[in-house]
Amino acid sequence: MKKLLLCTLLTSALAAPALADRLATEPVQPIEPAVITEPEKVELGKKLFFDPRLSRSGFISCNSCHNLSMGGSDNLPTSIGHNWQEGPINSPTVLNSSLSVAQFWDGRAATLQEQAAGPIANPVEMASSHVLVVDVLRSIPQYREEFAVIYGSEDITLERVTDAIAAFEETLVTPNSRFDQWLKGDDDALTEQELAGYQTFKQTGCTACHNGPALGGASFQRMGIIKPYETTNPSEGRIAVTGEDVDRFSFKVPTLRNVELTYPYFHDGAYWRLEDAVDLMAQLQLGRELPPEDIANMTAFLKTLTGDQPDFTIPQLPPSTNDTPQPVPFETPADSGS
Amino acid sequence: MKKLLLCTLLTSALAAPALADRLATEPVQPIEPAVITEPEKVELGKKLFFDPRLSRSGFISCNSCHNLSMGGSDNLPTSIGHNWQEGPINSPTVLNSSLSVAQFWDGRAATLQEQAAGPIANPVEMASSHVLVVDVLRSIPQYREEFAVIYGSEDITLERVTDAIAAFEETLVTPNSRFDQWLKGDDDALTEQELAGYQTFKQTGCTACHNGPALGGASFQRMGIIKPYETTNPSEGRIAVTGEDVDRFSFKVPTLRNVELTYPYFHDGAYWRLEDAVDLMAQLQLGRELPPEDIANMTAFLKTLTGDQPDFTIPQLPPSTNDTPQPVPFETPADSGS
Repeated sequence: MKKLLLCTLLTSALAAPALADRLATEPVQPIEPAVITEPEKVELGKKLFFDPRLSRSGFISCNSCHNLSMGGSDNLPTSIGHNWQEGPINSPTVLNSSLSVAQFWDGRAATLQEQAAGPIANPVEMASSHVLVVDVLRSIPQYREEFAVIYGSEDITLERVTDAIAAFEETLVTPNSRFDQWLKGDDDALTEQELAGYQTFKQTGCTACHNGPALGGASFQRMGIIKPYETTNPSEGRIAVTGEDVDRFSFKVPTLRNVELTYPYFHDGAYWRLEDAVDLMAQLQLGRELPPEDIANMTAFLKTLTGDQPDFTIPQLPPSTNDTPQPVPFETPADSGS
Repeated sequence: MKKLLLCTLLTSALAAPALADRLATEPVQPIEPAVITEPEKVELGKKLFFDPRLSRSGFISCNSCHNLSMGGSDNLPTSIGHNWQEGPINSPTVLNSSLSVAQFWDGRAATLQEQAAGPIANPVEMASSHVLVVDVLRSIPQYREEFAVIYGSEDITLERVTDAIAAFEETLVTPNSRFDQWLKGDDDALTEQELAGYQTFKQTGCTACHNGPALGGASFQRMGIIKPYETTNPSEGRIAVTGEDVDRFSFKVPTLRNVELTYPYFHDGAYWRLEDAVDLMAQLQLGRELPPEDIANMTAFLKTLTGDQPDFTIPQLPPSTNDTPQPVPFETPADSGS
């Protein structure tokens, strides 16, 4: 017992300098596990996140495009919305989105709660309305009971719906990646190639934007600083929010956490290979033509950013009742516009 | 301690006759929990069931239309398929489907394994092909490893894919409903109204078809025995399989397990209210006009058939690689037909 204790103390003492050092000096910090203070609200938010009755068709849920079995993304260039309409921009991952300075590629929502209201009523996404969604949920006694327990009354409002969804999304952090283990002092967590890739990542200048715990999400940057980004996607980025010409083609820097899982890349989802994304970013943003070895190393490093994925039981949704407004999966001339 | 033991023995003794009696004499038997003998295969099957890469678009998985958060169904009259095409028939629940004599409404697949291959290559459902799906899965090392562990070699074939999906589906039974508790001797598991509804259910003749552990799934019956069923749905049922004129409008009797969760009802999904479905069935199949009280009681009874729902952690899907064929979410003239 004494021997074991001594051993533990020695190990801690040896690990301590690396730990303190890296946490203080590296431009990336570890992801911390979620601290859940309102478990009932998180459970309710999970149900709502998976509930396709938030869409007009009864087919599309938040999880359709932010699939928690697939890195919180849909792995498509742009999303499939109501009536198979093509979305305007790549669905960003919901994982670690609580760490972002704002939501959406152009940052038009200040909070996760504000974001959650958007797709519900967007005619090319879930195509419902805030009135209809609240009517649907109010018709379901089990939902009314859960809202009553959490919010003190049975009244279901859009504000409460999006508050619960946001509370669930705040739990969707991905700690314990191999890179975070290394940051916390475990020298064996990374291979030599991965460490070399991380050094190149810093030396090339990537951490100017991809820094902090999420390696991104903290600022808006022009897509194509040195050379313009060629795309057929019409999005002009943050100018839509600020109206400032300087913000044209400025987008929120995406997180690199779990980047191995969140292909295809960029706001137009035009690049499927992580190597190609690394190569292009170095050219367009930093004016650097990287040798293949550096690209391979950086790609290897980026794959160490995959953390613990969501680990919970699939929710069971309370059934609709005879009073629940029915979904409209297929539009007829009489339906549309209603 | 002795008192407690005596008490337990007395309770068992009292419960025993009811137990033996009901299990021997009732036309319905309890659902037994799944016995999992190959847990790795079930885990692999779960991943495949949730993997939208089994579809051409990369958007539709088995779980899209057999949603395990919603009674194993999509709660739509007919399903939404590739390119938002309208499916020809209501998606039957996957829950307890292992208890069915055959799969699909017309029974054209003898086994769950045979069924699983259908939607993958159906152009109005997942719209992929058996060759493409196997190519996609073969390109993913984590899948190759899992197949190797389970089947003894890395080779991924359609037969193995559907075998694993079927193994997962066999676990999707829903034991422990209140009705099953009553069948097993718990007199307090049902209310008086629910018991009265069960008596009416038997006396009206419903158990002629809705019997056995699944209360259905064991036979094919004409939809509209006494009076024809009016529908705009063109399905003609089992004649498509047998070619026999006698099988026109004959469909597999659906299970009534979890029927509260699997609305809307019938092969065309035209009825949303369980009361209406009960009323109509009595008229069309049995020539009975039931009083509202009987319909209410039977509906109450049917809601006691909701058992333990699937209770597992959401699967994490292995990421695609640079060699994985990309999904085709939006058709262009060049894509279609390829």
